[in-house]
Amino acid sequence: MSIRDIPEIQALDTRHQLIRIPPQVDVPLTPRVQSLIDTPAFRRLAKISQLGLVSLVYPAAHHTRFEHSLGTYRLSLLYLKQLSRDRRFLDTVTPKQAETLIVTALLHDIGHWPFCHPLEGLALNGLPDHETSAAYFISADPIAEILQQQWNMEPADVTSLLSGPPQNDASHLLASILSGPIDIDKMDYLERDSLHAGVPYGNHFDQQRLIGSLCLNQQGNGLAVTEKGRTAAELMVFARYVMFSEVYWHHAVRSATAMLQRSFFELRGKLALDQLFQMAEEPFVTALSQAAQGTPFSELLSGLFGPRRLLYKRLLEFSYFQEQPVYQQLARRPYPWLVACGDALAKLINEHTSHAIEPHQLIFDAPPAKLEVEFNVEVAYPKEDCYRTLGEVSPVVQTLAREQFDDYVKRVRLFAHPELIRQELDVKTVRALIPQAIEAADALA
Amino acid sequence: MSIRDIPEIQALDTRHQLIRIPPQVDVPLTPRVQSLIDTPAFRRLAKISQLGLVSLVYPAAHHTRFEHSLGTYRLSLLYLKQLSRDRRFLDTVTPKQAETLIVTALLHDIGHWPFCHPLEGLALNGLPDHETSAAYFISADPIAEILQQQWNMEPADVTSLLSGPPQNDASHLLASILSGPIDIDKMDYLERDSLHAGVPYGNHFDQQRLIGSLCLNQQGNGLAVTEKGRTAAELMVFARYVMFSEVYWHHAVRSATAMLQRSFFELRGKLALDQLFQMAEEPFVTALSQAAQGTPFSELLSGLFGPRRLLYKRLLEFSYFQEQPVYQQLARRPYPWLVACGDALAKLINEHTSHAIEPHQLIFDAPPAKLEVEFNVEVAYPKEDCYRTLGEVSPVVQTLAREQFDDYVKRVRLFAHPELIRQELDVKTVRALIPQAIEAADALA
Amino acid sequence: MSIRDIPEIQALDTRHQLIRIPPQVDVPLTPRVQSLIDTPAFRRLAKISQLGLVSLVYPAAHHTRFEHSLGTYRLSLLYLKQLSRDRRFLDTVTPKQAETLIVTALLHDIGHWPFCHPLEGLALNGLPDHETSAAYFISADPIAEILQQQWNMEPADVTSLLSGPPQNDASHLLASILSGPIDIDKMDYLERDSLHAGVPYGNHFDQQRLIGSLCLNQQGNGLAVTEKGRTAAELMVFARYVMFSEVYWHHAVRSATAMLQRSFFELRGKLALDQLFQMAEEPFVTALSQAAQGTPFSELLSGLFGPRRLLYKRLLEFSYFQEQPVYQQLARRPYPWLVACGDALAKLINEHTSHAIEPHQLIFDAPPAKLEVEFNVEVAYPKEDCYRTLGEVSPVVQTLAREQFDDYVKRVRLFAHPELIRQELDVKTVRALIPQAIEAADALA
Amino acid sequence: MSIRDIPEIQALDTRHQLIRIPPQVDVPLTPRVQSLIDTPAFRRLAKISQLGLVSLVYPAAHHTRFEHSLGTYRLSLLYLKQLSRDRRFLDTVTPKQAETLIVTALLHDIGHWPFCHPLEGLALNGLPDHETSAAYFISADPIAEILQQQWNMEPADVTSLLSGPPQNDASHLLASILSGPIDIDKMDYLERDSLHAGVPYGNHFDQQRLIGSLCLNQQGNGLAVTEKGRTAAELMVFARYVMFSEVYWHHAVRSATAMLQRSFFELRGKLALDQLFQMAEEPFVTALSQAAQGTPFSELLSGLFGPRRLLYKRLLEFSYFQEQPVYQQLARRPYPWLVACGDALAKLINEHTSHAIEPHQLIFDAPPAKLEVEFNVEVAYPKEDCYRTLGEVSPVVQTLAREQFDDYVKRVRLFAHPELIRQELDVKTVRALIPQAIEAADALA
Repeated sequence: MSIRDIPEIQALDTRHQLIRIPPQVDVPLTPRVQSLIDTPAFRRLAKISQLGLVSLVYPAAHHTRFEHSLGTYRLSLLYLKQLSRDRRFLDTVTPKQAETLIVTALLHDIGHWPFCHPLEGLALNGLPDHETSAAYFISADPIAEILQQQWNMEPADVTSLLSGPPQNDASHLLASILSGPIDIDKMDYLERDSLHAGVPYGNHFDQQRLIGSLCLNQQGNGLAVTEKGRTAAELMVFARYVMFSEVYWHHAVRSATAMLQRSFFELRGKLALDQLFQMAEEPFVTALSQAAQGTPFSELLSGLFGPRRLLYKRLLEFSYFQEQPVYQQLARRPYPWLVACGDALAKLINEHTSHAIEPHQLIFDAPPAKLEVEFNVEVAYPKEDCYRTLGEVSPVVQTLAREQFDDYVKRVRLFAHPELIRQELDVKTVRALIPQAIEAADALA
Repeated sequence: MSIRDIPEIQALDTRHQLIRIPPQVDVPLTPRVQSLIDTPAFRRLAKISQLGLVSLVYPAAHHTRFEHSLGTYRLSLLYLKQLSRDRRFLDTVTPKQAETLIVTALLHDIGHWPFCHPLEGLALNGLPDHETSAAYFISADPIAEILQQQWNMEPADVTSLLSGPPQNDASHLLASILSGPIDIDKMDYLERDSLHAGVPYGNHFDQQRLIGSLCLNQQGNGLAVTEKGRTAAELMVFARYVMFSEVYWHHAVRSATAMLQRSFFELRGKLALDQLFQMAEEPFVTALSQAAQGTPFSELLSGLFGPRRLLYKRLLEFSYFQEQPVYQQLARRPYPWLVACGDALAKLINEHTSHAIEPHQLIFDAPPAKLEVEFNVEVAYPKEDCYRTLGEVSPVVQTLAREQFDDYVKRVRLFAHPELIRQELDVKTVRALIPQAIEAADALA
Repeated sequence: MSIRDIPEIQALDTRHQLIRIPPQVDVPLTPRVQSLIDTPAFRRLAKISQLGLVSLVYPAAHHTRFEHSLGTYRLSLLYLKQLSRDRRFLDTVTPKQAETLIVTALLHDIGHWPFCHPLEGLALNGLPDHETSAAYFISADPIAEILQQQWNMEPADVTSLLSGPPQNDASHLLASILSGPIDIDKMDYLERDSLHAGVPYGNHFDQQRLIGSLCLNQQGNGLAVTEKGRTAAELMVFARYVMFSEVYWHHAVRSATAMLQRSFFELRGKLALDQLFQMAEEPFVTALSQAAQGTPFSELLSGLFGPRRLLYKRLLEFSYFQEQPVYQQLARRPYPWLVACGDALAKLINEHTSHAIEPHQLIFDAPPAKLEVEFNVEVAYPKEDCYRTLGEVSPVVQTLAREQFDDYVKRVRLFAHPELIRQELDVKTVRALIPQAIEAADALA
Repeated sequence: MSIRDIPEIQALDTRHQLIRIPPQVDVPLTPRVQSLIDTPAFRRLAKISQLGLVSLVYPAAHHTRFEHSLGTYRLSLLYLKQLSRDRRFLDTVTPKQAETLIVTALLHDIGHWPFCHPLEGLALNGLPDHETSAAYFISADPIAEILQQQWNMEPADVTSLLSGPPQNDASHLLASILSGPIDIDKMDYLERDSLHAGVPYGNHFDQQRLIGSLCLNQQGNGLAVTEKGRTAAELMVFARYVMFSEVYWHHAVRSATAMLQRSFFELRGKLALDQLFQMAEEPFVTALSQAAQGTPFSELLSGLFGPRRLLYKRLLEFSYFQEQPVYQQLARRPYPWLVACGDALAKLINEHTSHAIEPHQLIFDAPPAKLEVEFNVEVAYPKEDCYRTLGEVSPVVQTLAREQFDDYVKRVRLFAHPELIRQELDVKTVRALIPQAIEAADALA
């Protein structure tokens, strides 16, 4: 059997059993794919929204990880179909490994819990990670059984591709299809998130041309594009920047995120995390809200998920180009430090003014330590018989990677309970106290 | 103040406060609209999906009545802006009445409960209706208070426009904007449902041209289009037909619907309907599932909403052009009769074969008595100074209305539990027993 | 070699050499296709607009038959790729015949001259037809040589498929792919004309679903669709109706068409038709204008093609639902009769009024004798193992075919020189004289 | 009268007389706009393609300057409508000046001749420029008469806004709407060129959001955007980069351009330029071809415009990141120098090899001296009450402007007659001789 003969790739053309997702795309379903989709763990993804709190700002962004998983799985078929015309790919990847990629693409989010990204963004010790959770679901029945009996595949092969260290050129290469600057995950979510949010940003890169230009990097262990796909790759990097700027890091989205993060941070001790992280979104929110009862965080969670919307307001904002020193002191700090800094600030305000601010009424939001930079993809120049990195041939991409993404898009913000705004908390005073708050937090750390 | 000066209509251009929904549409939010949107009753719409069980077949069709309400509200602004150029409209409708239309458009679904359409489709006695439910929410605080204080409007004016009998030309006219062949509700949902389902059917009619051609009918008490909008109106009627054919009455959607209807029919005695019908979707499903515990319907509901998808299979199908006599005997019967007929059929099969079918394992689904026909809109021919009905100038619309819609799209189907398919229940035997089952059901009625 | 191995079908996936056309579609170019495209006869299509006079009304509709030919050729590949999964198709059509279809699709418009449809619509005796012209180009070098040497194909096979009577099931079947209710020609032009005109009408049918449902009719000698494609086929028929209604038979487009037809009718004796019909659009117009010098038709042609736009105005309009008797007396008459009727009318007006109308200042436009009805396609119901015609299962299609298309869309119109409008020619008088004009024309015939 | 009452701006809403262009956009036509459009000079734009030689590569890119002018005119209405909500704009610009902008937007291309950009790109002495040509058409009847009588406007006001030096804040501001990083010209052509070429690049920036964010710069004499429009402005700059990269400076487009430039350069002495530059495209090509008869350039022009396509092939290519030294020696040189360099190279090759190359068989193409950089737009931060340049807040834009645009997209290329490729001209030899050719050309200069 060759890669082109894999039933799912064949099914792209036979069009026997299809399921339709936006934007007018048919996803082929073979019986063994249907079996995976019908498992409880996978169906749970139909009850976890892709963008979580974004729907508080873009109210139509209600799409699920189920839909995104189908889209990513389909792209794995298109990537494989294209790469199966590349001799070096065929020499590196066996049909069985290609099938493992297909399964992994379909199941790549199986371990995700509701609001996974913002909560993992806290980088707290002792928190389960979604890779472990994925491994749990994949290694247990019914998924394990389906893989073994219908796919003739070991669950460990899937979990290893999903999160293990690459062991050879083949797994290195396949991993770069799942995660990298031009991976199938990003290609799907940029378009899908745009479509449901109602914005044009993520749907302008030329999918066809990008896929048509896929090839292997010089070393033969990673995804690359030929010269023809360079612009398409730049567009994809740029699209991601714009989506971060306008959607994922929209200031009101960050306000909601900060409220959720702060609540979770305080409540985490009371929560049965292992259980929690296997829940769908509604039970997850219920569990969180129950844990918050009697605490100030009850109000925050109710503002996010309850019948009355309540979002903290932006009191102050610092970006790289606005107030660089403060920005640099607050960005990329550990989350507990940030909480301490907010607490210190509340205390300082209470000392210097007539306000009686409670710690949870002021929340710092700042870019996490982990950078988003992921632009290392090679561009092949067959005529010159050489490879260059995308950054080398695209100063724009280099600039995005080195400067703009993390320093311009992601800002440091101080969010305040609307009550404080109503009390006309003086911004200048708050601003003036921040250096002291930073000092206080540093002293504690 | 003129209609054009209504703040929401002004806000179409000022673009001050906007909220974005697909397809790349900006909805203007004034403070008094924001107040309505932030009420618990309205936010509940963010937790009720527009298409309910359709997402079992079109997995991305997860959009909410919240989104649809915003879209419908925006269209009310566009309709009013256009009609405010029509002298007869201005002579009939006051700015205050126009504002009532805007509020009513925004709140038109406020009384909807989860799966409202299929459950109301049962036409059971004693069931609350969503108009009553809407009146309840609108007449109670906080909505009533917002209407009175911020809109200077009586709640009764809204509920009367929403569901009362028209009392004069103005209310007749405004009602036709809310409900009729080219109303703002359909114009929004046809496009929105298409977009999220991933199909092209509902987004091909020329919204701009249709809106640009809006005028009053001859009598001055209803919405009409000029000759220029005739094709756009035909397209909208046709789009609705296609959406029924391919989405709303898709056979698998009907299977799920039949399972839900049958379960609700059996369980309704145990349910606190008044409470139930004020719930969001997840609690609604939970309540229904709890009531089903210990009954055979637990399995059905779990198949629809639980971790493992289980849909009944199509055993037989009758349409007008396939088996007219049977079709006509089963279509448009009261739901209890249909249940009795299914029960009788199960019994007959058990008598004539070795099967031991339980009544709930066979479900008849048939077009309800209420027809979908709504094509009466007038077309103005200014040059000839006359009006004609759309049906008169469009044989196609006439045909859709009189024949195709209810007789060709909506079919009679017999759905069976997958277990029966596995047991190889003989279709011919079942088919042969149907006349007897009909007789039995008739005898009972 | 199997059909799937035909180089052009292979090239859909390899994406080696592509040419891009709207809407973001890649057309595969093999060397032997490139050779055909680079011939003078084919390049001439880049200088003949697809819609001719339509651009006087939809100013962006400037696209060429070159572009349309590429689109149609690409669709032939998609149709063949899909049908190559059908056993009956493979038993009927050889790979060589499939290649003939591909070439014929690419060259199907090679014989078209500028404004071909309106001029052929005159149905005048002695006029060359575009089939003959196509045969001429195909049978001559360089095309003949390319076919023989690079395609290993006889030119006669192409011309026979393009215009000859079908000789067996295979050619009957292939001919139905080129011309029929769901042929590749219509599928391309409906979408392409819509896109360039800027209207949504032609791009809403579900191409993917239609192509995915293609199969053979019962007899095995024609294209059909399975039940799954029924709605898509209805949508395509409906799209064509709307395009006729809003674009092709737009009243101002018909005015321009009537002016061109009338001029050509008068000037045809002076024209070297064989030469003329091999020209590109600009030289064609120049030749026509030169022949018109010194005649009243010089002004008409200058109004259409010269620096100053001049279009005749609609004086009267009759449709089936407006004034049926007059409509029926004027529709579907031979063109010379229509000219005689117009001349008689001008004379009668001059007798009864103080006007001095010249015959060419009044032009009747009426539906030609040849009907557009082409809706006979079969729908396969595999479960019931039967076929039904589309008309049988779709009353809407039947209605379009029998009533609406030719009787409602295509109207009888009387166009007048703007000068007559300025002179305030009395419409009622003109209307009253029409029966006499008809009589006079009948007497002459 | 206020700006909002200008008839054309009013007509955006009244929808009385509209003309449709892609993508489904209605352009309002008032009688006085219709009069301008119906002049011979404006209708000539319907016979001049927007992208000239691009259609040799993107065969559907046949759209005209007529269509683009309508699109630009419509955007002027949208910009004005938006800016009319800005107090500072109203204080600066009178309604009469706003009307002048509208006319200028409509007529901004009236002086363009076929292939205007590549020919002006030669920067030859003594060539008429399109501004002069525009002034000629605008100052002469019938346009002058229409402006005076129907618009109550002096032709000189239009020509002054179109090409004169700004005389005050108002004209400075209006000029920035016509020409600048976010002007109406670019906003229209980026989208329009994309659509007709069939590529997604130019249609992804968020027009609505950009227009909704328009404001004045700090000084009050130029167009700016508020913070909300920053990303949209970045996207527009980026879109232009991609369009240059993939369409306008596509290597085959450049080959055709180089062939046309070289031919024109040689033939210009024989041409009556003043007459030529008032022609439509077909007569222009005819005149050029006639002048070329008997010269080697006859073959080049025939390859571009004649029945058989012949494009020179890329022999060598140098970009900033590929071979910087050679790139820098060849880029931004006067065109005559470039011709001399090509001639010298041909001679050198003949001396060092057995080839007998004629000078016109080798053509150097290189970026012209004039840079494309136009990214200076201010971004307003109302909260901080300050303005920053787009470059300051967007390192990406800065990088595009300073590095990528002119140095990475625009390359130096050596094109060769296909005959030389067939003769297997040795690329390495040619490459090695280039420094000597440069020296020779330098010696001549």
